[in-house]
Amino acid sequence: MRVALVYKKESESVAERVRKFLERVSDVAVFSSPTTELEDFDVLVIVGGDGTVLRTVQEIKNVPPTFVVNTGRVGIFSHANAEDFEDKLEEALKSMEYESFMRLEAKVKGSILRALNEISVLTHTPSRLLKFEISVDGELIEEMRSDGMIFSTPLGSTAYNLSSGGPIVDPKLEAIVITPVSPFRLGWRPWVVSGERTILTRVELREAVVVADGQKSVVIEPGEVVEVKKSKYPVNFFKVEKRLEKMSKKVRELT
Amino acid sequence: MRVALVYKKESESVAERVRKFLERVSDVAVFSSPTTELEDFDVLVIVGGDGTVLRTVQEIKNVPPTFVVNTGRVGIFSHANAEDFEDKLEEALKSMEYESFMRLEAKVKGSILRALNEISVLTHTPSRLLKFEISVDGELIEEMRSDGMIFSTPLGSTAYNLSSGGPIVDPKLEAIVITPVSPFRLGWRPWVVSGERTILTRVELREAVVVADGQKSVVIEPGEVVEVKKSKYPVNFFKVEKRLEKMSKKVRELT
Amino acid sequence: MRVALVYKKESESVAERVRKFLERVSDVAVFSSPTTELEDFDVLVIVGGDGTVLRTVQEIKNVPPTFVVNTGRVGIFSHANAEDFEDKLEEALKSMEYESFMRLEAKVKGSILRALNEISVLTHTPSRLLKFEISVDGELIEEMRSDGMIFSTPLGSTAYNLSSGGPIVDPKLEAIVITPVSPFRLGWRPWVVSGERTILTRVELREAVVVADGQKSVVIEPGEVVEVKKSKYPVNFFKVEKRLEKMSKKVRELT
Amino acid sequence: MRVALVYKKESESVAERVRKFLERVSDVAVFSSPTTELEDFDVLVIVGGDGTVLRTVQEIKNVPPTFVVNTGRVGIFSHANAEDFEDKLEEALKSMEYESFMRLEAKVKGSILRALNEISVLTHTPSRLLKFEISVDGELIEEMRSDGMIFSTPLGSTAYNLSSGGPIVDPKLEAIVITPVSPFRLGWRPWVVSGERTILTRVELREAVVVADGQKSVVIEPGEVVEVKKSKYPVNFFKVEKRLEKMSKKVRELT
Ligand SMILES: Nc1ncnc2c1ncn2[C@@H]1O[C@H](COP(=O)(O)OP(=O)(O)OP(=O)(O)O)[C@@H](O)[C@H]1O
Ligand SMILES: Nc1ncnc2c1ncn2[C@@H]1O[C@H](COP(=O)(O)OP(=O)(O)OP(=O)(O)O)[C@@H](O)[C@H]1O
Ligand SMILES: Nc1ncnc2c1ncn2[C@@H]1O[C@H](COP(=O)(O)OP(=O)(O)OP(=O)(O)O)[C@@H](O)[C@H]1O
Ligand SMILES: Nc1ncnc2c1ncn2[C@@H]1O[C@H](COP(=O)(O)OP(=O)(O)OP(=O)(O)O)[C@@H](O)[C@H]1O
Ligand SMILES: [Mg+2]
Ligand SMILES: [Mg+2]
Ligand SMILES: [Mg+2]
Ligand SMILES: [Mg+2]
Repeated sequence: MRVALVYKKESESVAERVRKFLERVSDVAVFSSPTTELEDFDVLVIVGGDGTVLRTVQEIKNVPPTFVVNTGRVGIFSHANAEDFEDKLEEALKSMEYESFMRLEAKVKGSILRALNEISVLTHTPSRLLKFEISVDGELIEEMRSDGMIFSTPLGSTAYNLSSGGPIVDPKLEAIVITPVSPFRLGWRPWVVSGERTILTRVELREAVVVADGQKSVVIEPGEVVEVKKSKYPVNFFKVEKRLEKMSKKVRELT
Repeated sequence: MRVALVYKKESESVAERVRKFLERVSDVAVFSSPTTELEDFDVLVIVGGDGTVLRTVQEIKNVPPTFVVNTGRVGIFSHANAEDFEDKLEEALKSMEYESFMRLEAKVKGSILRALNEISVLTHTPSRLLKFEISVDGELIEEMRSDGMIFSTPLGSTAYNLSSGGPIVDPKLEAIVITPVSPFRLGWRPWVVSGERTILTRVELREAVVVADGQKSVVIEPGEVVEVKKSKYPVNFFKVEKRLEKMSKKVRELT
Repeated sequence: MRVALVYKKESESVAERVRKFLERVSDVAVFSSPTTELEDFDVLVIVGGDGTVLRTVQEIKNVPPTFVVNTGRVGIFSHANAEDFEDKLEEALKSMEYESFMRLEAKVKGSILRALNEISVLTHTPSRLLKFEISVDGELIEEMRSDGMIFSTPLGSTAYNLSSGGPIVDPKLEAIVITPVSPFRLGWRPWVVSGERTILTRVELREAVVVADGQKSVVIEPGEVVEVKKSKYPVNFFKVEKRLEKMSKKVRELT
Repeated sequence: MRVALVYKKESESVAERVRKFLERVSDVAVFSSPTTELEDFDVLVIVGGDGTVLRTVQEIKNVPPTFVVNTGRVGIFSHANAEDFEDKLEEALKSMEYESFMRLEAKVKGSILRALNEISVLTHTPSRLLKFEISVDGELIEEMRSDGMIFSTPLGSTAYNLSSGGPIVDPKLEAIVITPVSPFRLGWRPWVVSGERTILTRVELREAVVVADGQKSVVIEPGEVVEVKKSKYPVNFFKVEKRLEKMSKKVRELT
């Protein structure tokens, strides 16, 4: 079994302990920054916060079953923390039980952006509004002015989607949550549409930026159209017991 | 082909025109109130508003493909109105193309309530709070005090769910939307969970009433548990073009 | 100095300790239920939760400076609890420093309802909508269908107003918060209007009930108009240090 | 009577008609960009949208009674439009009846920003959170992570405050509305505090920008404190009939 260990610089000491633990069961290739090579491994262990997880999987299409030792704040993707990773990691590697979580793909100006949390289309300057026209499988569902628009996966529903007033969505569902950012309108509601849908968004009034997981971005001109749909490449995380209960606890702890 | 026509008393004149139209293609059994006999027909035509549709399907498990001539306000379930039903009804009967929409089932005190819009658990007196404990497939996701709790289907997401701040959900999804009614808490979010989940809700503090589609209800005592899950009996509506676009237009017209 | 002590039956033991404490400084008249006689006292001490405070002041126009020993849940009106009332009560009686908090008055069918928290106009049966037309000093600001409408004082903004999505309002302001209950509309916002305004509300579609502080109520017929404005009789509470900071803490503790 | 006319370049033709109309009653000084000289006039007439009004008054402390001929979108500050300004302007100049509307002042890094709509403290990059600590007259009311914080006047409550979910506030009130922008928290509520309060806001985690009316801005470092309170210099607008009713209509027309 070939294991890759990716760690966040600030979490080096924890990573070192994880590396030693892993070497008892398999040889370990260690990386301190994301790389496409990670696709060639049987298991991926990440030591860092949710940000590090997002940056790591951003680079790879076929994501090996992944185990996360959390050293960040919220740790929505985490399986264990620095104090209790041994047993859980051992259990995971023995059972090799994992679940797939959908990612989104945005086609914009000929390039593809992939996101585990969300694709967002945002104005450069807050309160300098963008005009959005959104259609789902050819059906026009929204026309509004706002600071931005978020297309979130269920797993990302507790991130930027939550900050903008979106609902919490069960990761067992394949769905896309459409939530506006600071819409200049009396009434609006988030939409939760089927993961099989293709969403086309026309952006007008100003230049905007299309961002994947707050990391990669592409600038677009007024009038351009962004296509968002489910990616063929999900992220595979080792099984987590009571994932919904944990999501609920973590969002209540947000201060 | 055996067709049943159900109409709302106030819409008798429209019903009469629909009956005459139908008789050219098949014999028509006419009913002015809901009955279980409707299960034995090949096609069900309803003349009335959304309320009449809810009351009619409430009585039947196996719902024949249904065509609605709307004479009510919103008409979220409607295929046509009094002015334009001829062509659309003819088209429907020819194509026999229909879609299934999930319903919910609530098991409470040994009886079953079935709902196309939503199952709601409500306090008798507004602002006399109930205490709710909600678990999804055994995972505790919410504990809160509120005037009530709504478990909505995607098709029902634009009804009581919308009034309580819930998201709009694509009827192509099989999901259950959990939205509190006037929760006495600083922060809360609606949950959208997979249609395959079983939701158990413990209600405390006061007597409460479990209501299906605002129609049928069962009173429960503090401490009782209500089980909500997808019903084996969906409602079948003839195909509607651009259903999402229509939903979007109708909710914006709500004043 | 003539002191009246009102206590909630379940809090008898605490009330007894407070009575003994008070008798050292003045004779004490003890009541276990609200009465208009309380107007004739120089100081009013209440032992109970927010509910007992609401029920006690409901009966009286000229409210003496009031000190609340909280034995309820939230205790938004409280000055002390069973463990720490001695020093604070002594301090209050020495300084006699108190603040006035506006109440609202509703004129409906010839009778007057007075409220410290809120006047609410509610439907009998949830999701059986009422139609509201609201004008402020003769200016039409809202027409909507909803389960109810809340007219709240700043001090009441953390009660039913908060449950229905209203803002938190500084009790130093003289303002009236207008918040709908489960409005059947895509977009709505609470209004915060000047305390000097007169608000007229026409209710249609169904019978409704006008309720003061969840206590007293009057049933009205469709078409009737309710007038709400600031009452000439505020409630006087002994000064509380850092009232805003306490309000903020208490609403965050609501679960 | 000395009248100053300020117009937006794109509205030159309308401005020309207004200038001719004004010259019948008084000599008119014409400006096509904001200047402090406007303080020396008895009356200020602005031809443009809300943006032009904001930019014009931004430059001046003592604002003469102002009449706005709207050529922009929403026109919340407008008295008339290009088609109907003659009578209304004549009436205004005759009656000289005007109302004062509070502005806010932000003290940040030794400089003062003045705002008619709102002072906002925003992150440079959306979803790159700021940490806020807000105290009102020394009382800590909020600690949260969000993309920004808005301190709005009542007149500005229908602008960026509305986009971020804040309530609509009666311009007759002297109040400050505190509304977070995309707060990363399950629960939050806008606060409406008395206009006499002084609000101190500590910003942490990242560099932020303090913006007045979306126009003037000052960059601040993590750890700096921004002081916001009512400005001594209100804006004076000629009287508008049924201002609340117009506000209500305009926000409902926002699409
Ligand atoms: N799906 C998610 N649900 C909830 N919170 C999330 C999610 N994804 C990211 N976050 C949180 O959003 C914030 C973004 O910060 P960031 O992405 O840098 O994470 P982080 O915890 O700082 O991780 P790292 O230390 O690896 O940078 C963090 O609090 C992160 O936990
Ligand atoms: N799924 C739904 N989405 C949106 N609105 C709905 C939905 N179901 C019911 N409604 C609306 O909720 C309100 C409830 O009233 P009711 O159920 O009596 O319908 P109605 O239009 O009066 O029909 P009828 O005339 O047959 O009674 C109506 O405005 C109805 O259109
Ligand atoms: N202005 C207010 N702000 C916040 N919460 C309030 C306010 N007024 C009442 N409440 C709370 O609303 C709920 C209503 O219950 P109730 O009025 O019976 O109070 P209570 O705490 O049970 O008092 P008591 O024990 O005297 O009945 C309680 O949790 C009460 O604390
Ligand atoms: N207090 C307010 N309430 C509601 N909307 C406002 C308020 N202030 C500004 N706006 C609106 O916010 C948007 C900001 O754009 P901007 O400030 O450029 O105004 P505008 O209408 O384009 O005026 P102009 O043409 O003079 O630039 C506009 O739609 C403006 O009408
Ligand atoms: Mg980070
Ligand atoms: Mg009806
Ligand atoms: Mg009580
Ligand atoms: Mg502009």
